Amino acid sequence: MVSEQKHRVVVIGSGFGGLFATRRLGKVPVEITLIDRTTHHLFQPLLYQVATGILSEGDVAPAVRDVVRRQRNVRVLLGEVTDIDLGARTVTSTALGRGTVVPYDSLIVATGSAQSYFGHDEFAVHAPGLKSIDNALEVRGRIFGAFEMAELEPDARRREAWLTFALVGAGATGVEMAGQIAELSRQSLRGSYRAIDTAQARILLLDGAPRILPAFDERLSERAAHHLRKFGVEIQTNAMVVGVDADGIEIQGPDGGRRRIAAMTKIWTAGVEASPLGALLAKQSGAELTRHGQVKVRPDCTLPGHPEIFVVGDLMALDSLPGLAEVAIQSGLHAASVIRHRLEGETATRRFRYIDLGDLAAITRFYAVGQRGRVVVWGWPGWLLWLVVHLVFLTGFKNRAAALFSWIVTFFGRSRYERTITWQQIVARRALEAADRARVPH
Amino acid sequence: MVSEQKHRVVVIGSGFGGLFATRRLGKVPVEITLIDRTTHHLFQPLLYQVATGILSEGDVAPAVRDVVRRQRNVRVLLGEVTDIDLGARTVTSTALGRGTVVPYDSLIVATGSAQSYFGHDEFAVHAPGLKSIDNALEVRGRIFGAFEMAELEPDARRREAWLTFALVGAGATGVEMAGQIAELSRQSLRGSYRAIDTAQARILLLDGAPRILPAFDERLSERAAHHLRKFGVEIQTNAMVVGVDADGIEIQGPDGGRRRIAAMTKIWTAGVEASPLGALLAKQSGAELTRHGQVKVRPDCTLPGHPEIFVVGDLMALDSLPGLAEVAIQSGLHAASVIRHRLEGETATRRFRYIDLGDLAAITRFYAVGQRGRVVVWGWPGWLLWLVVHLVFLTGFKNRAAALFSWIVTFFGRSRYERTITWQQIVARRALEAADRARVPH
Repeated sequence: MVSEQKHRVVVIGSGFGGLFATRRLGKVPVEITLIDRTTHHLFQPLLYQVATGILSEGDVAPAVRDVVRRQRNVRVLLGEVTDIDLGARTVTSTALGRGTVVPYDSLIVATGSAQSYFGHDEFAVHAPGLKSIDNALEVRGRIFGAFEMAELEPDARRREAWLTFALVGAGATGVEMAGQIAELSRQSLRGSYRAIDTAQARILLLDGAPRILPAFDERLSERAAHHLRKFGVEIQTNAMVVGVDADGIEIQGPDGGRRRIAAMTKIWTAGVEASPLGALLAKQSGAELTRHGQVKVRPDCTLPGHPEIFVVGDLMALDSLPGLAEVAIQSGLHAASVIRHRLEGETATRRFRYIDLGDLAAITRFYAVGQRGRVVVWGWPGWLLWLVVHLVFLTGFKNRAAALFSWIVTFFGRSRYERTITWQQIVARRALEAADRARVPH
Repeated sequence: MVSEQKHRVVVIGSGFGGLFATRRLGKVPVEITLIDRTTHHLFQPLLYQVATGILSEGDVAPAVRDVVRRQRNVRVLLGEVTDIDLGARTVTSTALGRGTVVPYDSLIVATGSAQSYFGHDEFAVHAPGLKSIDNALEVRGRIFGAFEMAELEPDARRREAWLTFALVGAGATGVEMAGQIAELSRQSLRGSYRAIDTAQARILLLDGAPRILPAFDERLSERAAHHLRKFGVEIQTNAMVVGVDADGIEIQGPDGGRRRIAAMTKIWTAGVEASPLGALLAKQSGAELTRHGQVKVRPDCTLPGHPEIFVVGDLMALDSLPGLAEVAIQSGLHAASVIRHRLEGETATRRFRYIDLGDLAAITRFYAVGQRGRVVVWGWPGWLLWLVVHLVFLTGFKNRAAALFSWIVTFFGRSRYERTITWQQIVARRALEAADRARVPH
């Protein structure tokens, strides 16, 4: 290809989809602008370990600039994308209250999804999700803080509320959090307190669905549930959480009856909603959205009528593919390959074919469940598989080595080293609570 | 000793003084209550590495409960000490807006010092110090954020201001920060940006004193200054910082002339003031305070007229000893020994004798300066010594191993892995700035 001006690719989002697309374009003669509103890539599947004191932020969130520093055809731009003009083929990235207009020849939109509270955004202040580093640090502070508060609390009923942890949503993240809090309370933290027995902590895993880990084989759901119960986790399925406030939650059972549980710590992993850029694309292109706001794309991951725009990862709706890191990676790589092939002159449409590498969820240390097609694995063989897969997919040598080191220390030493609570958290939480009180009339 | 009720020791502060005192009392038949307003011990001498992306919070701030979990005679209490009643021999620890009254037979006050702005507390919002984990994360966010802002800034003058770092105070921490920012800008971050050359960053190390590292031998000050200048650090001595705002600083030279420097990032390590508990003790006991608020103690580290109360570490004024970790450790150990000997029936006064183990400051990787008495060391031998000493004194096996691992990766790989910037930081900073605007009429 001979041209004065190189083909300009804009990638929005530095998660799995955006980052893998960017790296795949490393040797392709294009100019890439990678835009994200944070400065880091995020290895979301391990975020729950940041929240429970095993890993540090740096372990799961390497600086994007560092990851692509040797790739000279990439410019990393910190900013929030506030507009995409499909006609003019430009993206507006806003930072410091100032917009930068970036033109593109190809666009990859990989902004993923946020936690959904099913129309109850007022729950968010009391029940943080687990989608960002901020979420993980907030949840970390709340979990370790709850044990401290329980130790200080003279009133038995309030002490019990501090020792009650409600996990709303029993997908992989909810299940992993339940297992982690069970380990913390039954093992890691035991003996560190004098006024309370941390093993008395009540851990509730709640879901509106009839079983936990609904994406997994039914046998694995049962095994996981059995293993969690052995660790003292109370599982309540067919239980819809219909109310969340500072002191507890309200649950509605299948019979419609409601009951309240006093729980100071609530963590919400029940649902996702696509990034608002999906709606922006749909409005301009006429593309359809799913009810979670994902963009229905063509079989090659492009926006209908806009072959130059790819939507990948969690924001993409295609063949009912799940919102997994693996889907984001493969669709990101696919978009990059299509761009490369087009630059080489290919005109045929390349259909995205997802290769299902399987699913894994770590329940507790030395116990995970996994499946690939009809093959299932559980217990310590599953856990070893989990370990290897996560080490392979972690970005960067230091992150891999550091995570492995932290795991060795945590899994054999049973201690949790990353559990600092900051004043910034507390100041930020109060500011958000005040904003929430101003917004929602109680 | 035979008694129904064990001797009750209250230790306020879980820094070096309080923690080492607590541990030294491990096998002594006493009941210890260790009170702190954070949940962690803090290895302050390495805080600058948390601020510059080398270490994680957990590496330098292990949970106090974890450190003393096997020591069954200790209860750890999260709370802020709001009152000490010398007559009734009780301490009031406040948490959750509720006070807990804790009686003592012996009291060790080890609450250290905070950053002093010499009466200009309004500087604090713009020029954070480096005394807490929060400070370190705040400074980390500001440093790495400044390079991001410079990359985005189209205006040359404002870009320069984003690339100007003013370090107020040229003691060990200021010098170490200058060296770190020099390494970041000249080495680690080079090549990661496209619009700016990070090596153009201006690093100002300012002090009102005539030389940097005034606590060190003059030859070492000169060597350190020479080494820093080689790395591009501008050293301005005899320069008083008389103004700090969001966009820059104002400096007054020895001739009284003032000039302004535009600098978006300011870090303040110029002075310390003792914890307010010093004034509380002085008020009730009639003890004298130094002008920095430290309590003048008797030669055995006790409060005049109150042999049951020990003041140790940074809060203690004795023989002009400096505010070093080593002084805190030794005076904490001394207080514990006196308590043990008294319980064994000894009545004679044990004078505290400080053994000067020397001073060390790491300027850049592979270059440190150190002294012990009249012996001085510099360059890589100093750096090796620095490495060994810090590994020995870090608390906990995992912290040592993790720090060593991070150092190997950082010093040989030149990368910085712990550089996450959080929204919590930004929310908290805005809340503090708003509070400051409400407090100080501008």
